[in-house]
Amino acid sequence: MSDIKKVVLAYSGGLDTSVIVRWLQDEYNAEVVTFTADLGQGEEVEPARAKAEALGVKEIYIEDVREEYVRDFVFPMFRANTIYEGEYLLGTSIARPLIAKRLVEIANETGADAIAHGATGKGNDQVRFEMGAYALKPGVKVIAPWREWDLTSRDTLMKYCEDRNIPVDFSSGKKKSPYSMDANLLHISYEGGILEDPMAEPEEDMWRWSVSPERAPDEATYLDLQFKKGDIVAINGDEMSPATVLTYLNKVAGDNGIGRVDIVENRYVGMKARGCYETPGGTVILKAHRAIESITLDREAAHLKDSIMPKYAELIYNGYWWSAERKMLQTMIDESQEFVNGVVRVKLYKGNVIVVGRQSEDSLYDDNIVTFEDDAGAYDQKDAEGFIKLNALRMRIAAQKGRSQL
Amino acid sequence: MSDIKKVVLAYSGGLDTSVIVRWLQDEYNAEVVTFTADLGQGEEVEPARAKAEALGVKEIYIEDVREEYVRDFVFPMFRANTIYEGEYLLGTSIARPLIAKRLVEIANETGADAIAHGATGKGNDQVRFEMGAYALKPGVKVIAPWREWDLTSRDTLMKYCEDRNIPVDFSSGKKKSPYSMDANLLHISYEGGILEDPMAEPEEDMWRWSVSPERAPDEATYLDLQFKKGDIVAINGDEMSPATVLTYLNKVAGDNGIGRVDIVENRYVGMKARGCYETPGGTVILKAHRAIESITLDREAAHLKDSIMPKYAELIYNGYWWSAERKMLQTMIDESQEFVNGVVRVKLYKGNVIVVGRQSEDSLYDDNIVTFEDDAGAYDQKDAEGFIKLNALRMRIAAQKGRSQL
Amino acid sequence: MSDIKKVVLAYSGGLDTSVIVRWLQDEYNAEVVTFTADLGQGEEVEPARAKAEALGVKEIYIEDVREEYVRDFVFPMFRANTIYEGEYLLGTSIARPLIAKRLVEIANETGADAIAHGATGKGNDQVRFEMGAYALKPGVKVIAPWREWDLTSRDTLMKYCEDRNIPVDFSSGKKKSPYSMDANLLHISYEGGILEDPMAEPEEDMWRWSVSPERAPDEATYLDLQFKKGDIVAINGDEMSPATVLTYLNKVAGDNGIGRVDIVENRYVGMKARGCYETPGGTVILKAHRAIESITLDREAAHLKDSIMPKYAELIYNGYWWSAERKMLQTMIDESQEFVNGVVRVKLYKGNVIVVGRQSEDSLYDDNIVTFEDDAGAYDQKDAEGFIKLNALRMRIAAQKGRSQL
Amino acid sequence: MSDIKKVVLAYSGGLDTSVIVRWLQDEYNAEVVTFTADLGQGEEVEPARAKAEALGVKEIYIEDVREEYVRDFVFPMFRANTIYEGEYLLGTSIARPLIAKRLVEIANETGADAIAHGATGKGNDQVRFEMGAYALKPGVKVIAPWREWDLTSRDTLMKYCEDRNIPVDFSSGKKKSPYSMDANLLHISYEGGILEDPMAEPEEDMWRWSVSPERAPDEATYLDLQFKKGDIVAINGDEMSPATVLTYLNKVAGDNGIGRVDIVENRYVGMKARGCYETPGGTVILKAHRAIESITLDREAAHLKDSIMPKYAELIYNGYWWSAERKMLQTMIDESQEFVNGVVRVKLYKGNVIVVGRQSEDSLYDDNIVTFEDDAGAYDQKDAEGFIKLNALRMRIAAQKGRSQL
Repeated sequence: MSDIKKVVLAYSGGLDTSVIVRWLQDEYNAEVVTFTADLGQGEEVEPARAKAEALGVKEIYIEDVREEYVRDFVFPMFRANTIYEGEYLLGTSIARPLIAKRLVEIANETGADAIAHGATGKGNDQVRFEMGAYALKPGVKVIAPWREWDLTSRDTLMKYCEDRNIPVDFSSGKKKSPYSMDANLLHISYEGGILEDPMAEPEEDMWRWSVSPERAPDEATYLDLQFKKGDIVAINGDEMSPATVLTYLNKVAGDNGIGRVDIVENRYVGMKARGCYETPGGTVILKAHRAIESITLDREAAHLKDSIMPKYAELIYNGYWWSAERKMLQTMIDESQEFVNGVVRVKLYKGNVIVVGRQSEDSLYDDNIVTFEDDAGAYDQKDAEGFIKLNALRMRIAAQKGRSQL
Repeated sequence: MSDIKKVVLAYSGGLDTSVIVRWLQDEYNAEVVTFTADLGQGEEVEPARAKAEALGVKEIYIEDVREEYVRDFVFPMFRANTIYEGEYLLGTSIARPLIAKRLVEIANETGADAIAHGATGKGNDQVRFEMGAYALKPGVKVIAPWREWDLTSRDTLMKYCEDRNIPVDFSSGKKKSPYSMDANLLHISYEGGILEDPMAEPEEDMWRWSVSPERAPDEATYLDLQFKKGDIVAINGDEMSPATVLTYLNKVAGDNGIGRVDIVENRYVGMKARGCYETPGGTVILKAHRAIESITLDREAAHLKDSIMPKYAELIYNGYWWSAERKMLQTMIDESQEFVNGVVRVKLYKGNVIVVGRQSEDSLYDDNIVTFEDDAGAYDQKDAEGFIKLNALRMRIAAQKGRSQL
Repeated sequence: MSDIKKVVLAYSGGLDTSVIVRWLQDEYNAEVVTFTADLGQGEEVEPARAKAEALGVKEIYIEDVREEYVRDFVFPMFRANTIYEGEYLLGTSIARPLIAKRLVEIANETGADAIAHGATGKGNDQVRFEMGAYALKPGVKVIAPWREWDLTSRDTLMKYCEDRNIPVDFSSGKKKSPYSMDANLLHISYEGGILEDPMAEPEEDMWRWSVSPERAPDEATYLDLQFKKGDIVAINGDEMSPATVLTYLNKVAGDNGIGRVDIVENRYVGMKARGCYETPGGTVILKAHRAIESITLDREAAHLKDSIMPKYAELIYNGYWWSAERKMLQTMIDESQEFVNGVVRVKLYKGNVIVVGRQSEDSLYDDNIVTFEDDAGAYDQKDAEGFIKLNALRMRIAAQKGRSQL
Repeated sequence: MSDIKKVVLAYSGGLDTSVIVRWLQDEYNAEVVTFTADLGQGEEVEPARAKAEALGVKEIYIEDVREEYVRDFVFPMFRANTIYEGEYLLGTSIARPLIAKRLVEIANETGADAIAHGATGKGNDQVRFEMGAYALKPGVKVIAPWREWDLTSRDTLMKYCEDRNIPVDFSSGKKKSPYSMDANLLHISYEGGILEDPMAEPEEDMWRWSVSPERAPDEATYLDLQFKKGDIVAINGDEMSPATVLTYLNKVAGDNGIGRVDIVENRYVGMKARGCYETPGGTVILKAHRAIESITLDREAAHLKDSIMPKYAELIYNGYWWSAERKMLQTMIDESQEFVNGVVRVKLYKGNVIVVGRQSEDSLYDDNIVTFEDDAGAYDQKDAEGFIKLNALRMRIAAQKGRSQL
């Protein structure tokens, strides 16, 4: 079918990717290398080893990449206050470039000439995996079984397993769900099932990482989040690693009913899709990061960031993390974060993230100037007249020439 | 002091603007025309008549402009999903151009050669009033007493009143407040007092239009919001005028603890300022409008809107409503709203606005394409391979030439 | 091979598209309808009729679309001062949407279910034709023979003609050229041949529409171009239709050695390509349009246009003329042109377009304000102090807090 | 008049700034420090020393800053292909931040508490000087005599000189000119006089740095320009310093009639102004830099640069060089230039800069892919079908739902 000799597969240990292992072996007559990452999805990854071995895989990579994930992908993204289409915190999108990178690195280490993944031909993830792979290893072959094979119904897939003695309990251990789900330390997502009707409200038992606001505690939780160069480095005074920060915030925010999103989004492949997401910790980070920037970032720096954010979010959503343009934007964003230091106090209560205080040694807020009280000459109100008159000059001239804005 | 004969003053009926009436009469020897607008601030405007009369004003304009305000200013702004610096819904900013316009129109009707307002020289409102006035009546004189006079402390102001027999109960009837406040149908704002410390959490009794999430009902409220060309035209099936929509939503959302914002923002005059805002109805509109767009708006139309929104918000914040560039952007935004029709169902609960459904005859969501089930050929998954390969081509070439993105 | 019954083909009358007629008849067993447009390419289109008839085509459309082309495509584009990658005036790109539209309209009239074109699989034109067709007739089938067939060398193509008695003199009448060329009223383009080496200077005899600057007259030519709402409506006082304007300017500018461009551009399909273009009239229009805007357009309107122009140019280059987002941008651009009226005087001389004068009844230029002489109080220089101080305030505060910009 | 003790003045040695020396001594009773820079304006700066001494100045700074100017200001600007309002190469704007910086540094060295300049209250230069000064030394006082004094006519100025024995031959040695002029290594500018009529063509003898295209040689000049990280480092194989590069190009390009611009521009202070500029070398750099980028820069990196360029140009024009946002953009631009290396061959002929070749070891142009000949499988034309179909999908869905783009 091709001259592919060895394939690195993004392997979850679940049924679908286990079938892919066998299918690659059969159809491509290729050796399969599996890569299973602990991205914080909340399931053990070690069981994937035995399953891969049972399928005859000899090179098995199982790795805990949680710190790298948050430090090098999640945190840089939040420095830009990134949000896609006003609502989506990009929890799936931002994990894909890390996986693509590791697939390529493992291909280089093992001498593989191809990579494979279990994403379908309708979604964004195929794009994100493959775009990353092509950008990092331009000669790589990509195998996307869901675009190729005919195992497109549950029946044909089960028949395939039966014929080849693939244990059907290779399911990933998740509670049987009517939804297509994906999880990592930043979020868990739900698609399909009744969600395909955009008028249908999700059932309460779909959600896994957060309680509903209704069931959240009646007492608010306060947190002090300490930022350094735009990243959270300590909570309530305790220094924490990036992954620890996110793990901690997921727990506390999820317990307070925070981080659910239910949207219809525009996929890069051209269709609209309904998705539900839980991003408890990320929701807190986004809010708090804006708050620390509000006192430490220059106005025009902030507005410049806001103006390019939609572009930056789109790049991540569409799979262009490993591109020259994303790197350019990142360089600019990171440049702006030098003084984004200080503490933000947030109140978490039944779905709400409320900023109740922010302070910083790098604050640009100056109450001597802004005060309604006597400012002792810090600001000369008469300057405003000239400021307004020259800003209005072009409009006055236009009006004098008879142009009406009414 | 000048050759000004007649001045139209934005008159609230409160103490400060009453002092301004007298001060204009004294210092400029000018006739004063007062303009008092019911913008939905929640106070009677008719009492301003007697106060103005007592000050010797002969031309008194008192008007209910609530419908015009929502129809021609608030709704057009929300069509763009407008938000300033990620948080602020521009409740003060968007009311100013209407006042500026009426001041100018009244100046034209009454033959006045100047307008005056009670905004200080440190804030944004002076800019918004004056920019509007200059744009609409380029030869107008502007008098901003707070930038000119020496009545800058409470004591000097009171002395001035005493000397001239201005009744001190000309206060606007608001409960005595330590905050500087402003209200209209879209929001109420708070500045000053303890808020000048960005680390100080506002006291619960500061807020006037919403209960706290803690005190909101334990039962959620569901609303069906019907959109036509991007504006809400009916709630729960009842057609309503624009101002009625906003009044209704303010009540329901405020009762459910929705719409409080506490931020440090960047003023156009160059300083950072702490502001607290309650925008109950607007918060619901923003969320619901994004939801109806999510199924009815083309992806690239939506992304184009997102990319220019920060600019559009900045224009409104900075006082450029009556500018050529705002009109250009508005034309583009309005063009996009032709098919933004349909119903959004929201759930309001203790501070949360949760979209739980959206439907439209103009929906572009197509479950035949997006489905995880058999799509009967509506979408050919094999197309994705070419899509990805050509999108990746430039990155592959760069990598082949030795450029690393790692 | 498919169930296609009737195909509308963009037919030039040349050898390649004549082969396509036969190939569609043979391979698809489909009836072929030909569409040949006079876009101002400088060749007779009527001879295409006999050729099509000889190939058995029964429905033959031959149309002069020059006025529509300039009025509805070229002029709207120039209102935005459109230029791709700083150099390319989009002469090929802007003609494609018109052809796509006519193919679709003819398909609707003739009951055809498919369209076909002679563009290759490496270029932008396939994208532009097909994107337009899909946007205007979503169920249409598209046949792109160059992506399907195996007639990919000159030899196989000639053999195919011989086997099927297709006269080889069906060449389009152009002088035999080593370049791949395309022409319409806006430009002529050259690709391929020695141009594939980006270090090779084009030979002088490649260029067809302009003399070299060296061979241009020693006397300059002056023109007065009259604009109305951003379009040229008269030259030297003579009113002209859009196509007449462009025809006239092509002649005069080409005679003066104007409009040659030699670039490497980035194609939408992911590769870089060398292209040479002659756009004599368009080069004059672009320069003159900027000049008339310089006196009639508000500063911020102009800057807003500049800021979205690269996006607008990209949309046209990439084939998105018939998209919601292009329409949005066009609406905004057109809104800005209401007062872009007046006369620009240009001097054409040996490759140079020099603006030497501009005047307009809608001019916003005011020499009473700008003058170095006494301005009689039109502008108060003292206003500048406040203007500068408030614009600088945020930077002063940052510097006071110890932030260095050095 | 104030408590200012010592002022650093931007001193040209000409009459106007000599008057300012005396006026500062008289009106402010302040010690004056003069700063005279050789920015490449083409006049000796050393004579300023004797003039300053004659006026009693004790601290005299005369410096050759040409290399710093081109290296740290001009070249970084050209990396962005910067052009204001489509025409202006920012020759005045880009010199101001360097002067502002040196004024501040000298103020720090000499213990001065103020700076002063000779720019008027109507222009952009006052903004650029003062914005830089405030950003770099926030507590500095600024004195702008033209906004303060009453020496606003030639007569009053001459009378002032006479009364104080200021030699009137302190004029700067320029040929007496009816124009207001400014020059530095990047350009010379002309304003005022007959140029205040935008319909008046400049007289040939106004221009000083270039011959007219008519008088340029009949033989073209070819140059090979070698770029490294976006800057020209060698010409025709000879390595040169930045200032040498620009000096060389000014000479050769000026001799070939290149670099004249005649425009009406929008000033930051709100008025339109006519300006004529000669920028011979800069015109060549701009064209050549785009050409080297055309083969070495990734498409999306290039488009991102194009999309922010108008903003970047506006920042420089408006005087925000020393701002956080300009630094952010610069960081992004510089990041993009790593591979902008190679040689561009240009042909200079009677006002034309014609790129005739470009080559680079970092070229991303790949003739194996783009070729019309057999590409040996480097590009699979069939990929284009999927690429187009998925890019068109959203538009097809919209059309199927009945939305027409016609």
